Amino acid sequence: MKISADDIYKSVGDIRAVNPLIHNITNYVAMNNTANALLAIGASPVMAHAAEEVKEMTTLAQALVINIGTLSSAWVRAMGEAFHTALKEGLPVIIDPVGAGATAYRTRTVRELLDTGHPAMIRGNASEIMSLADGRLKTKGVDSRSQSDEALRAARSISENNQCVVVVSGAVDYVVEGQDVVKVANGHPLMTRVTGLGCTASALCGAFAAVEKDTLSAAVQAMALVGIAGEMAVEKSAGPGSLQMHFLDCLYNMSAVEIQERLRVEV
Amino acid sequence: MKISADDIYKSVGDIRAVNPLIHNITNYVAMNNTANALLAIGASPVMAHAAEEVKEMTTLAQALVINIGTLSSAWVRAMGEAFHTALKEGLPVIIDPVGAGATAYRTRTVRELLDTGHPAMIRGNASEIMSLADGRLKTKGVDSRSQSDEALRAARSISENNQCVVVVSGAVDYVVEGQDVVKVANGHPLMTRVTGLGCTASALCGAFAAVEKDTLSAAVQAMALVGIAGEMAVEKSAGPGSLQMHFLDCLYNMSAVEIQERLRVEV
Amino acid sequence: MKISADDIYKSVGDIRAVNPLIHNITNYVAMNNTANALLAIGASPVMAHAAEEVKEMTTLAQALVINIGTLSSAWVRAMGEAFHTALKEGLPVIIDPVGAGATAYRTRTVRELLDTGHPAMIRGNASEIMSLADGRLKTKGVDSRSQSDEALRAARSISENNQCVVVVSGAVDYVVEGQDVVKVANGHPLMTRVTGLGCTASALCGAFAAVEKDTLSAAVQAMALVGIAGEMAVEKSAGPGSLQMHFLDCLYNMSAVEIQERLRVEV
Repeated sequence: MKISADDIYKSVGDIRAVNPLIHNITNYVAMNNTANALLAIGASPVMAHAAEEVKEMTTLAQALVINIGTLSSAWVRAMGEAFHTALKEGLPVIIDPVGAGATAYRTRTVRELLDTGHPAMIRGNASEIMSLADGRLKTKGVDSRSQSDEALRAARSISENNQCVVVVSGAVDYVVEGQDVVKVANGHPLMTRVTGLGCTASALCGAFAAVEKDTLSAAVQAMALVGIAGEMAVEKSAGPGSLQMHFLDCLYNMSAVEIQERLRVEV
Repeated sequence: MKISADDIYKSVGDIRAVNPLIHNITNYVAMNNTANALLAIGASPVMAHAAEEVKEMTTLAQALVINIGTLSSAWVRAMGEAFHTALKEGLPVIIDPVGAGATAYRTRTVRELLDTGHPAMIRGNASEIMSLADGRLKTKGVDSRSQSDEALRAARSISENNQCVVVVSGAVDYVVEGQDVVKVANGHPLMTRVTGLGCTASALCGAFAAVEKDTLSAAVQAMALVGIAGEMAVEKSAGPGSLQMHFLDCLYNMSAVEIQERLRVEV
Repeated sequence: MKISADDIYKSVGDIRAVNPLIHNITNYVAMNNTANALLAIGASPVMAHAAEEVKEMTTLAQALVINIGTLSSAWVRAMGEAFHTALKEGLPVIIDPVGAGATAYRTRTVRELLDTGHPAMIRGNASEIMSLADGRLKTKGVDSRSQSDEALRAARSISENNQCVVVVSGAVDYVVEGQDVVKVANGHPLMTRVTGLGCTASALCGAFAAVEKDTLSAAVQAMALVGIAGEMAVEKSAGPGSLQMHFLDCLYNMSAVEIQERLRVEV
């Protein structure tokens, strides 16, 4: 697979033209960021979690994003209902397993979703992805080199078992489909000091999956765009407060040339 | 009715002097924006939804804002209790029917509130307002000219049936009371790329209604101020991220001259 | 007790080095601000409230922050479970009694927590602190001089009864432990026009308590740092929108010299 700047910019254009409705069942912390990032790129966000409407809302959407960052039993039920509705409708589903591995409840919630169907993508950091693969509820401190290797093995295993794309976010993002791995080296460390940018990446994966039918390509495009917008924003920023603002402005104004100049994807 | 810049600036001064407490039962996405916009204009926001306190909080407030953007059954009950408490206390109530028409649950929730009492105002976009008038749960795609006409008919009908002011937000806002219509042409398209600015407008309608007893006038003033602050903010902004920031700064610093120069209200 | 700029900067260095995990059970309005402020200072925020995981999450944390700004019965139960877990684990707990005194439910919720154990700190404004001391559910309007005196008496009484530090926030913050009082005169009035800065102060108290074992000192350091970051941010800001952004940038970039030049603490 080859991802070019033109591919990304074409998808951005499609998102801006189509304004796909992205149904988010996400955490309280990142809801506002997520909605603003989707609006900035041209998509239409909607949040809905009530038993009375969650399935109906999913049927109206072009993609579903499930994020377990602040879960509770009613929300977990809503996630399940939305997930199954989306699968029945043929919609791409993105799962963000925030905190999986930190508590048993989070790990179990994601595993139970995965037991009932295949999402299009799972996007998490190394600890979260590893917790989904091997049944360990706590990840041990390991040096980052071996953690990367272990996370990559976990991602491949999850991808094969669940027939989905798995994204391991980090200094370099690994986008994995079966044995295929694409590395995305865009981004900046300051982005880890802004809450919800990982959640935002997952939401944008939803927007890209709504217009790009090749799921691996959609994931790579979304991760690259988030990284590029982050890099550009950091250059204008004095710290994490201004980064959050410039990130949205950069997403909104993103041009083909900017993507071209900065794209760092390696198959 | 005639609304002058002086009327608006007088209300802003009253809000700054009185710091009216505005009780918001609103959605998770817009809570932070809404609170910040109320603080920037000089009001005091409070959020409370628990069965144990919702009525008591309403009795402390000078206006109540009900926004159904992320509803669930417990919140809908709280909305009903706060609504009836506010009516008993003679407080102005503003209803923002976010997503009415998209799901049956949202449409039904607002209709059931309206069946039990008269709010001071309902503020929504054309689809939302039309869904409340005619029983259709989904709005059809129609060209914007005829949509405006249809929304205006819907607003008139809702206004008469519920003895309230109805605001149809859009490129031009229509503020309707019975057969009277005031058009507010302030605002900028970039505002639609920031989440929660509609919710913010509803919250500010609450602040204006707390100090201006003529409800139609309060609605026009609030919608004009939001539009003017948005226009001013766009001129300083590089995109939706900076717009959100400058919008709050502009609200906070709004002067009589700025309102005078930009006000575009037509009766 | 003597607090120097070096003490504060040492704690900031420790937070940046250790990245303590701060478990927040807080309100919907301030969650995003709180998380961003903790990230900006170098801590790791986590939000969790589900019965299924709240205790497990607390055991992973280095401090617990309980904020009742948007409470409901399920959240109150979670607060109690996290509180008792934290006490058993020997973690510092910070309680922010948002709106105590405004409704009986809020006052009762905090009192019931205090009946079952001793937090490390309670941080609130004068009305909130007074409501916890004397059983009055509504505070009367009193002139600010006598309110300060009354709040200080209340803080001393609460501190002695609950063996904890009590912070009364205001133009000058009073940090009280038994009969000891430290005044922190940093800060700026514009900070009251940004939602959630009080909640942020409580969260940062948690981060400081995670690295500074002297609780009185931790509270003074946190309140001084928030005030200094606020002052510095105001100087760069055109209003409350930009203040919110610059506040995070200032926290992130805070240097020893800036603390030295601005620190206004009086024992």
